[in-house]
Amino acid sequence: MKKIIKNVDVLPMTEEGLVLRDAVVVIEGHTIKYVGAAEGLEAGWAAAEEIDGAGMLLLPGFINAHTHAAMTLLRSYADDLPLMQWLQERIWPLEEKLTAEDVYWGTKLCILEMIKSGTTTFADMYFFMEDVARAVEETGIRACLSRGMIGVAPTGLQALVESEALIEKWQEGADGRITVMLGPHAPYTCPPDYLEKVMALAEKYKVGIHIHLSETLQENNDIRKMYGKSPVAHLNDLGLFEYPVLAAHCVHVSPEDIKILQAKKVGVAHNPESNMKLASGIAPVPEMLAAGVAVGLGTDGAASNNNLDMLEEMRSAALLHKVNKMDPTTIPSYKALEMATTGSAQVVGLGDQVGKIAPGYKADMILINTEKAHLYPKHDYFAHIVYAAQSSDVDTVIINGSIVMRGREMTCCDEKEVLRQAQRCAERLIG
Amino acid sequence: MKKIIKNVDVLPMTEEGLVLRDAVVVIEGHTIKYVGAAEGLEAGWAAAEEIDGAGMLLLPGFINAHTHAAMTLLRSYADDLPLMQWLQERIWPLEEKLTAEDVYWGTKLCILEMIKSGTTTFADMYFFMEDVARAVEETGIRACLSRGMIGVAPTGLQALVESEALIEKWQEGADGRITVMLGPHAPYTCPPDYLEKVMALAEKYKVGIHIHLSETLQENNDIRKMYGKSPVAHLNDLGLFEYPVLAAHCVHVSPEDIKILQAKKVGVAHNPESNMKLASGIAPVPEMLAAGVAVGLGTDGAASNNNLDMLEEMRSAALLHKVNKMDPTTIPSYKALEMATTGSAQVVGLGDQVGKIAPGYKADMILINTEKAHLYPKHDYFAHIVYAAQSSDVDTVIINGSIVMRGREMTCCDEKEVLRQAQRCAERLIG
Repeated sequence: MKKIIKNVDVLPMTEEGLVLRDAVVVIEGHTIKYVGAAEGLEAGWAAAEEIDGAGMLLLPGFINAHTHAAMTLLRSYADDLPLMQWLQERIWPLEEKLTAEDVYWGTKLCILEMIKSGTTTFADMYFFMEDVARAVEETGIRACLSRGMIGVAPTGLQALVESEALIEKWQEGADGRITVMLGPHAPYTCPPDYLEKVMALAEKYKVGIHIHLSETLQENNDIRKMYGKSPVAHLNDLGLFEYPVLAAHCVHVSPEDIKILQAKKVGVAHNPESNMKLASGIAPVPEMLAAGVAVGLGTDGAASNNNLDMLEEMRSAALLHKVNKMDPTTIPSYKALEMATTGSAQVVGLGDQVGKIAPGYKADMILINTEKAHLYPKHDYFAHIVYAAQSSDVDTVIINGSIVMRGREMTCCDEKEVLRQAQRCAERLIG
Repeated sequence: MKKIIKNVDVLPMTEEGLVLRDAVVVIEGHTIKYVGAAEGLEAGWAAAEEIDGAGMLLLPGFINAHTHAAMTLLRSYADDLPLMQWLQERIWPLEEKLTAEDVYWGTKLCILEMIKSGTTTFADMYFFMEDVARAVEETGIRACLSRGMIGVAPTGLQALVESEALIEKWQEGADGRITVMLGPHAPYTCPPDYLEKVMALAEKYKVGIHIHLSETLQENNDIRKMYGKSPVAHLNDLGLFEYPVLAAHCVHVSPEDIKILQAKKVGVAHNPESNMKLASGIAPVPEMLAAGVAVGLGTDGAASNNNLDMLEEMRSAALLHKVNKMDPTTIPSYKALEMATTGSAQVVGLGDQVGKIAPGYKADMILINTEKAHLYPKHDYFAHIVYAAQSSDVDTVIINGSIVMRGREMTCCDEKEVLRQAQRCAERLIG
């Protein structure tokens, strides 16, 4: 169906600082057809649906490069605890009790929150992924799904089987909105022989690999004890980086590690708020960007954030690295927005499909309402979005050419029902 | 007038972790009369106005302990620059062009944003304070106003005269919503003989002093060169701390400085986002709290933040200190909320009047709507507010017993007109 958004200021993210004033964006089917002045449209072209973008900014939807969607059920259930106590005493016991239905409703709650905050694609790693895929299909969002696999767990081999089934059934599913990756949890939970099996599947199906990497000092110490090298060097030596890899966190990476990440084109998902809240450390993002590593942004799961708000995540990234470097020019606003859009697109393997407002790209975009006190006066739009905006400023969300939110009303799911079901699941779990 | 808020979960901030479920809050005139179970109300008591608080959290309004309200006109006008370039090339030249009318509309824009994000009191330091006071009077917010005074500037002596006039006219003005403080800018802009004059006024009028202190390493180095001691020791030796002092920033304070701040009951306004954005450094807030220093939270001006959002400021404070200490138990959610309410109340000199929901306190409170995807499921409310909420969740704001916002509609000012006038002033300034 043909759609046009008119009278809108567009931040296409195709060129640093570029704003197209009073432009139009044309969508045909799932794809962006035209971006520019209204006069540039071919004569006689007519839209089936028009959206007035006056007072709005149009930009690519945010891409959450690393999360565990269903963990939204555990939001604010356990906070401000030492990492191992948080995991061992609170999170893991509850995760053991999760049913397929919990994961379905937890994921729906997560997707609802993500769409309402302008996220149009997310990269997920969890379990009961069949139910996650169903939630993605129904809600209209785009996702890169991976079945989390713990090689050392009794479920390790079963997880490989489930991963294969997920690929067979869902790769390019839901109108092309779903891509599947393999999800070996981390180097410390997946020994080399297990990772060999993962790589065999990556080879067979030509899919990417989503893995946690160098999240904590503990991990680095453990891997060094076991293999005599850093987690990055360890995976590189195993040959994992011969496949497309999305590495979440990369907090404790050395200059040598960064060289490997760059050379092997490993994509990094930076999760500043989770790293801050769990006190994992501060990833050397400015150094990775300077070295030419592709860096995207993610929220991680809501249990360690506690929301899925990419505007907030951009702001935290920009502010954290400035103070950490004692340099206010670090991660300027455009760079932060780039990480959340084109950067994330690249690291989740969709760099040629989403993350930009340009002809040929998928029609994944958001409209931000600037008629808010905290967005006045109208100076620099990039600074406004990164340093001042909040997710409730997102007015309209379009994914794959379909309007999934308009005037903050969801068109793709029954919001109240999702809240009710998620609350029911959470109460049964915690009971 | 008598008001009652019914069916509401109250976070009174009177005791760690306390939530009063399904309670009522009663207001008579400017004051909170009763907080507790509906059954505890005296027989025959009748409200003139009822508010249904179902699905809401009621808590004290946030207290922004340090800002420069009118600088909201400069939001997103200059970002991501080295500090001195930012100040000398962008901010100061524009501030020289500010008129009384600009300050009036800039302050109104600031107040509008603050009320919409749940702030009920702010501590301001700027100029054209007569116009700031007028904006405060008209909008219904509570404020601690100080005329910023630069001792080394040609306007230094005039600023003292204006400060005195501000006290004479506005102390306890606007139904008691305005208190006046003296605002010597900083130790490096106000030499000892000038601070002597400030102290003489503090003595004469029994008012407090609002000052920037140890914001940057540069300041510490300069003061040490000039006086051979730290800024804190320098002010202490001058006798400034014999008066009630609100010290903004305190980023670079030593353990000895912290002992002085504690012993002299100096209140500290912590501004994490401004300190991050300008790369000033990370204040030793956990150390100050452990030493018993009163610490509140502020946003600083919108030119270095770029919003006035206290929910965000709490979150940044809680997350920043966790990662800085590599300890996830640092500044837990209750402590962060305490800084933004009771902590800030104490440091702005209103600790016995605002910051708690308790009988006898001023009726300054907010209702947060929890029926949002990002606030589901309903686990820990304190974690929800500090780690997940956003300012658009603030539904209703009551200040001094009057409803200034209800269902996000302002009752105290014409929102569109404020936006329009602020934009006009900004365009004239920059245009």
